Amino acid sequence: MRVDVDIPGKHYPIHLGRNLIANAQLYPEGARNGRAFVITNDTVAPLYLNQVQAALGDQLPVHVMPDGERFKSMEQLSAVLDKMLALKLGRDTTIIALGGGVVGDLAGFAAAVYQRGIPLVQIPTTLLSQVDSSVGGKTAVNHPLGKNMIGAFHQPDCVLTDLNTLDTLPAREFKAGVAEVIKYGLLGDIDFFTWLESHMEALLARDGETLSHAIATSCRHKAQVVSADEKEKGQRALLNLGHTFGHAIEAHLEYRDWLHGEAVATGMCMAAELSQRHGWISRADCQRVDALISKAGLPTAVPSGLSAERMRALMQGDKKTAAGRVRLVLFRALGDALLSADYDDALLMQTLQHYCRD
Amino acid sequence: MRVDVDIPGKHYPIHLGRNLIANAQLYPEGARNGRAFVITNDTVAPLYLNQVQAALGDQLPVHVMPDGERFKSMEQLSAVLDKMLALKLGRDTTIIALGGGVVGDLAGFAAAVYQRGIPLVQIPTTLLSQVDSSVGGKTAVNHPLGKNMIGAFHQPDCVLTDLNTLDTLPAREFKAGVAEVIKYGLLGDIDFFTWLESHMEALLARDGETLSHAIATSCRHKAQVVSADEKEKGQRALLNLGHTFGHAIEAHLEYRDWLHGEAVATGMCMAAELSQRHGWISRADCQRVDALISKAGLPTAVPSGLSAERMRALMQGDKKTAAGRVRLVLFRALGDALLSADYDDALLMQTLQHYCRD
Repeated sequence: MRVDVDIPGKHYPIHLGRNLIANAQLYPEGARNGRAFVITNDTVAPLYLNQVQAALGDQLPVHVMPDGERFKSMEQLSAVLDKMLALKLGRDTTIIALGGGVVGDLAGFAAAVYQRGIPLVQIPTTLLSQVDSSVGGKTAVNHPLGKNMIGAFHQPDCVLTDLNTLDTLPAREFKAGVAEVIKYGLLGDIDFFTWLESHMEALLARDGETLSHAIATSCRHKAQVVSADEKEKGQRALLNLGHTFGHAIEAHLEYRDWLHGEAVATGMCMAAELSQRHGWISRADCQRVDALISKAGLPTAVPSGLSAERMRALMQGDKKTAAGRVRLVLFRALGDALLSADYDDALLMQTLQHYCRD
Repeated sequence: MRVDVDIPGKHYPIHLGRNLIANAQLYPEGARNGRAFVITNDTVAPLYLNQVQAALGDQLPVHVMPDGERFKSMEQLSAVLDKMLALKLGRDTTIIALGGGVVGDLAGFAAAVYQRGIPLVQIPTTLLSQVDSSVGGKTAVNHPLGKNMIGAFHQPDCVLTDLNTLDTLPAREFKAGVAEVIKYGLLGDIDFFTWLESHMEALLARDGETLSHAIATSCRHKAQVVSADEKEKGQRALLNLGHTFGHAIEAHLEYRDWLHGEAVATGMCMAAELSQRHGWISRADCQRVDALISKAGLPTAVPSGLSAERMRALMQGDKKTAAGRVRLVLFRALGDALLSADYDDALLMQTLQHYCRD
């Protein structure tokens, strides 16, 4: 299966299926001719690096980084760039990002800045990166003062989404990816949301056909949004549904304990609650959101020890602000999200107090 | 005077004239409303920072870096980004690059990667940066293993080319900028080259009208080339006329002693010589090139201690290669350059031996 991303000046395919990584024909010509550099981590390399080598040869230079979000740093980026320059890799080298979101974001940023930009192939190996970060060209590293603070937009030349990689994904990480799948239904496709309500068991069981439909639908939504608004001037910000609340939770936990998708899951419940308090959606709508997120085994409540005041302050620190006021992705209706700074601050505080009751 | 740069998805003006820096109306609205961050150096700040403050206010946060090419580094970039994050500057902040090419390239790269890209105003204060680096969106820092190896394409929102800044520019730096002015005539505008032959004295005397015509014509050529080929897939590479030879000279000197424009000047003579040896231009054409470069007070011979073999090797290290073979910008005729890998290696070695006679 193939989903196309069509951005002004850049058109590329997402290939979706099984046994894709070892299929040389799916890679750009330069990479097939030996001009490639693989970036992966020490969890993924033992599992899938040999398949990239089967496609592109054993002599490929490889950078294996340690697994973990804290290695999505300027230091690790410098280590990658140093190695590429020491190998005298030219501007015609393709970077192959083999791993989850951390590898994809860092490798993508390396591709964005190495000699002012070189080709990139994303091979996402987690559900989260398959439905989210591998598509759309956002790349970044973290900074001690904030996540994704240093980065660039750099579209890949193609994305290879090999469903086989999900066979080895731990259950908790899989569910964190499901949060982003639910997000696409919630923000713009009520039919998909309804489909998820009746197919969640099959999805969690990683049934092939269900998985394939869920990922392809998610990628199509992401591709459509990114095609319309690559640089996040408008519509693309809708993809941050649940993220401003979620980032506050993650910051409170110092990016430990909870996975990103888990924080987004609770964040989506909070966005629904705030919308309901404005009278934009019904109490029954809110309950549907909570029910599906619970069914996916994802959290619907904030972690303990986080006060409403502290959460409000952490939300202010989020970078998606316009002239100082935090804009939030809220609901006109389930399946119809909007980005708004036009919400009632008192209702926001009530929502936070409702969730932060410790 | 105003020259427009029209790149797909990005249109911006180069304002050219006197007393522009203190004119608030020329800055983007966000910057006028206090959302700006100035990057400059310790040579330029005492001369022109007060004019930026006159336009945008005294409270502007400023980063003053030390003057010099060696500060165009990842370390200095990190220092800038650290400061911007510590100040909690949002994505609506405009970076104001006040200085020559080093400040412009580093500040431009910071604007390219801060929160995945923020607005940028270039205020070039040297002739070289006015006719070259401030226009076209190439940004970068150097790496111990090569110049401009880490960077991005990031177009400014506007360029303020204030001719007053040239009043304080040392003569040697002014002449180095003239090398790039001559380049535009040589690569695509024989009439401008001929005009320069008869106006070089006035240009070196910094006569206002002559200066204005020379800079505007150069900017128009740069804008036209960049509009047609932002990412240097083809035509833009012609702007590297003299640069592959020049970079070899600079690398030999470890980027000391000679200014970039001086190395490019000699490099243009060498490109003419190699073209003449292929029979593409005449001996008289070569002599015209040498004569104008000499008249500008620029070098037409390589520095001592550089052998032909060493120079050939240094040219190989330049990044503008396709599948291993160095492409050179050569002449079909004076005023008509082409990028070619289709030159005779023996004639290239003869040219290098002709120049490297020590």
